[in-house]
Amino acid sequence: MSNYDKGARRERELLKKLDPEGFVGMRAPSSGSGGKKADGEERELPDVLAGDGDVFYAFESKTSGNDVIYIDGEEIDDLEFFSHMFGAQEKIAVRFDRMEWFFFDPSELYQTRGGNYRIKKENVNKGETLSELVC
Amino acid sequence: MSNYDKGARRERELLKKLDPEGFVGMRAPSSGSGGKKADGEERELPDVLAGDGDVFYAFESKTSGNDVIYIDGEEIDDLEFFSHMFGAQEKIAVRFDRMEWFFFDPSELYQTRGGNYRIKKENVNKGETLSELVC
Repeated sequence: MSNYDKGARRERELLKKLDPEGFVGMRAPSSGSGGKKADGEERELPDVLAGDGDVFYAFESKTSGNDVIYIDGEEIDDLEFFSHMFGAQEKIAVRFDRMEWFFFDPSELYQTRGGNYRIKKENVNKGETLSELVC
Repeated sequence: MSNYDKGARRERELLKKLDPEGFVGMRAPSSGSGGKKADGEERELPDVLAGDGDVFYAFESKTSGNDVIYIDGEEIDDLEFFSHMFGAQEKIAVRFDRMEWFFFDPSELYQTRGGNYRIKKENVNKGETLSELVC
């Protein structure tokens, strides 16, 4: 299974877990673009949007079979941009294999000197659990 | 070109027209589902979401080469449902061939006895224009 397929499956899984909590959502289209930035680069759409009529989230979803996840600073910038434009609350949704989902605000993530972000598996439980997210 | 391809092209066109007005948006994935309703039917996702940081719209987009457009009552129900859950304002975006886009609130549309909705080409300019929508 490709990384894309695995990511897509995880995103559908996330939506399924949010469903009994009263949330509905949608995934971004695989080929979708969020338009071009001033530098000519394509802006990346949030992976998943979900709301319950009370709160509305834009998720960047990151999954891994390894012990650490790196996230490009630009991905976080794009997520913050769309969240602002859509009136959504941005969250990084993280899932290491054989673990539950954990959720982070970008400001809670460790930032590298190069302006990227990092989450180690051993620290992932510092994020919110799904039940904390939806309560 | 299939009806789906034509619809998709029109939706991309709509996003392009919204872009210089300060809006960014995304189309729903072609194969996406918005989950199941109580009756087991799939809920239909809004065709397009777009926001400018101030207002956030969920669009059902309808285009036609004929003189009249019919919209299923269920599609409108689904649009209202998602708009509520996502904190968006619902709009029907209508485009007849060789005309501009016009935008309607569901309550402004003529409702048939069967609970569906109808827009005639001769009345389409009763809707908001794009510049009225974004102002």
